[in-house]
Amino acid sequence: MKKLICGNAVVGQSGGPTCAINATLAGVIRGAKQHPGHIRTLYGMRNGIEGLMREELVTLTGKYDAEEQLALLGQTPAAALGSCRKKLPDPAEDPGFYERMLGIFRKYDIRYFFYIGGNDSMDTVAKLSAYLREHDYDMAVLGLPKTIDNDLAGTDHTPGFGSAAKYIAVTMQEILLDCAVYRVPAVTVVELMGRDAGWLTAASALGRGVTGLEPDLVYLPERRFDPARFLADVRGALARHPNVVVAVSEGLRFADGRYVGQGCQSGAKDVFGHSYLAGTGKVLEQTVRQEIGCKVRSVELNLPQRCAAHLASAADLAEAEGVGRAGVSAAASGVSGEMMTILRTGSSPYRVEFGHTDVAAVANRIRYVDDAYINAEGNHVTDACCAYLLPLIQGEPAVTYANGLPEYMVL
Amino acid sequence: MKKLICGNAVVGQSGGPTCAINATLAGVIRGAKQHPGHIRTLYGMRNGIEGLMREELVTLTGKYDAEEQLALLGQTPAAALGSCRKKLPDPAEDPGFYERMLGIFRKYDIRYFFYIGGNDSMDTVAKLSAYLREHDYDMAVLGLPKTIDNDLAGTDHTPGFGSAAKYIAVTMQEILLDCAVYRVPAVTVVELMGRDAGWLTAASALGRGVTGLEPDLVYLPERRFDPARFLADVRGALARHPNVVVAVSEGLRFADGRYVGQGCQSGAKDVFGHSYLAGTGKVLEQTVRQEIGCKVRSVELNLPQRCAAHLASAADLAEAEGVGRAGVSAAASGVSGEMMTILRTGSSPYRVEFGHTDVAAVANRIRYVDDAYINAEGNHVTDACCAYLLPLIQGEPAVTYANGLPEYMVL
Repeated sequence: MKKLICGNAVVGQSGGPTCAINATLAGVIRGAKQHPGHIRTLYGMRNGIEGLMREELVTLTGKYDAEEQLALLGQTPAAALGSCRKKLPDPAEDPGFYERMLGIFRKYDIRYFFYIGGNDSMDTVAKLSAYLREHDYDMAVLGLPKTIDNDLAGTDHTPGFGSAAKYIAVTMQEILLDCAVYRVPAVTVVELMGRDAGWLTAASALGRGVTGLEPDLVYLPERRFDPARFLADVRGALARHPNVVVAVSEGLRFADGRYVGQGCQSGAKDVFGHSYLAGTGKVLEQTVRQEIGCKVRSVELNLPQRCAAHLASAADLAEAEGVGRAGVSAAASGVSGEMMTILRTGSSPYRVEFGHTDVAAVANRIRYVDDAYINAEGNHVTDACCAYLLPLIQGEPAVTYANGLPEYMVL
Repeated sequence: MKKLICGNAVVGQSGGPTCAINATLAGVIRGAKQHPGHIRTLYGMRNGIEGLMREELVTLTGKYDAEEQLALLGQTPAAALGSCRKKLPDPAEDPGFYERMLGIFRKYDIRYFFYIGGNDSMDTVAKLSAYLREHDYDMAVLGLPKTIDNDLAGTDHTPGFGSAAKYIAVTMQEILLDCAVYRVPAVTVVELMGRDAGWLTAASALGRGVTGLEPDLVYLPERRFDPARFLADVRGALARHPNVVVAVSEGLRFADGRYVGQGCQSGAKDVFGHSYLAGTGKVLEQTVRQEIGCKVRSVELNLPQRCAAHLASAADLAEAEGVGRAGVSAAASGVSGEMMTILRTGSSPYRVEFGHTDVAAVANRIRYVDDAYINAEGNHVTDACCAYLLPLIQGEPAVTYANGLPEYMVL
């Protein structure tokens, strides 16, 4: 049995914002309150690891931990502490960076480190955890999963995904109804987020078996995109009815690996070497206009996919909060170097438990949409996919409004 | 006193869909039930006047007039009867068209005609009304206003606008929170609908005085767009804080009258001669990238602005329904050739009454944003503008969900 560490804790948010990352923060704050024997003061890092290095810490304990504040925090989108896209250096190449960080941990007696983020943020957790193990500083380092992309390995799904999926599913319903009002043959291409994995694009089909409204065609980045096949698919759909709606992932690639949206992208890369993508929908809009010649438009759902907190999934927010609390409990019981996970322990009724897995096995890996979730033609999802996704969009949080706008928590 | 006409009625939906057009339809259905001495059977035209000419009529009375159905209809976006973009011919040029229509009215004993639509649809109402007056057929012809653009003359505001404005106001809050998470200087250009009038773009500022979150700059089509001035404005905002958000109307034009988005538009025109616009945000994104060189992106809110019924304004839906009911009452009392209007009879508390105005004075006219609502610099809206807009986005309708998705009514 590991000895009980008592000291202070720090929590940070990293990577792209979501609707649920603040719910996880609220869970960590609640968890810290529940473990006063382990955590004296919980600090928040401003802008993730970057703010930590500048010692920009905000005291959460006693200041931002009242239940009314936490309820409001849970319905606030984006990252209340601020975020960053900072890749940690290799300890061998820049040992000074880690020495400065360790100095800050010692100065504030930080014994618990919680980092809420996606693939790239888990790289931070893994490096930090490995460094501290070698430098005899006793600190529990925990990764708390967060990404709308649902592409983290080792977990049934990721907090933040369910809310993005619900936004996409509901918005696709509304777009399908909107597109159905005219009788003129028309194609609407809806571009959805997901650079590598097609989970968000798959969520566009969630009307199946519920309202009966779903896109005619759904193209995921897990299958290489064949323009000739796409045009044949669209022509086939137009032969059946005038209003064709196609859902496409921003990350679609041709057989040779080039992105479909490459024609419209800037060529810039982020610090992790990812290409910035834009324009898959626009490219396909032009393709339909030139090759088929009917009325066509493209719609990119864009940022609201990750920040439309007014339409979050109550199931997602509850799990995101639970992951935060469970992370604190795990750390208090001696777990370190792990990412918290969600295990689906029942399907009907849907049930989950929280677990954890080696963060090094998660960092920088991508979880793709299962083969069983994509149809044989590669142009839609299967019923099994909808069955997997549907529990994740259940429930509508009771968002409070004042004067017509949602209320938010500002830290 | 006009004699009481007793016969059948027909209602149609025309032009672009909104979140509130079905609420007005529900109001007409309720109104018809309340006037059984005037209206025996209420029919719906499929796809507006086009469906009428094909005699595609759906019987609403007794089939789609139960309160549970009407409640569901009121939360269904788009146009439940289908819509069209049909410009009526000049009676002098195509008298046969009008004779065929009159034949259909006689065949079904139609004595009340309700048409829910915007500027172009009011042109239909005006032409039809003038024709019938000259051809001795006794029918009340009423226009019921509908447009997210809020650009109809003769009414304080239009049903459908409040819901679109609420969607924009709330989504802008979420985007502002999303954009605030990083510290890297960045510009986000948000493109909003409104080809001619800037009402929707103005709604992006509604956080003022409520949450305190609003875009740094707001450009409406009522002011000619000066790229040099725009760059100076953006540079000034970047000097104050790193995350600059700019709201722009799709209809911005340069001093010489060309659309800013012209570089990206197809050049196609619709049957009313309007240019299809797209790309104002993209053009300004490129401008900032080339001239300022910071991180920049553009977001086009696109179709959800007019169909996001999950985030409708309760005030808007109530007025949209009321306009439908009031229209039936007015027609039953002998009013014809008019468009129903909303009169603001009080500001604090906000109160409205319904009236009507000569439809010929509304058709094909555009109501622009008042000068008093735009600041002197032409790069934002005034407090008076927010005071005008804020009552229109009040209240959240109790949308019912089943299995994670909103429930809809299909006619």
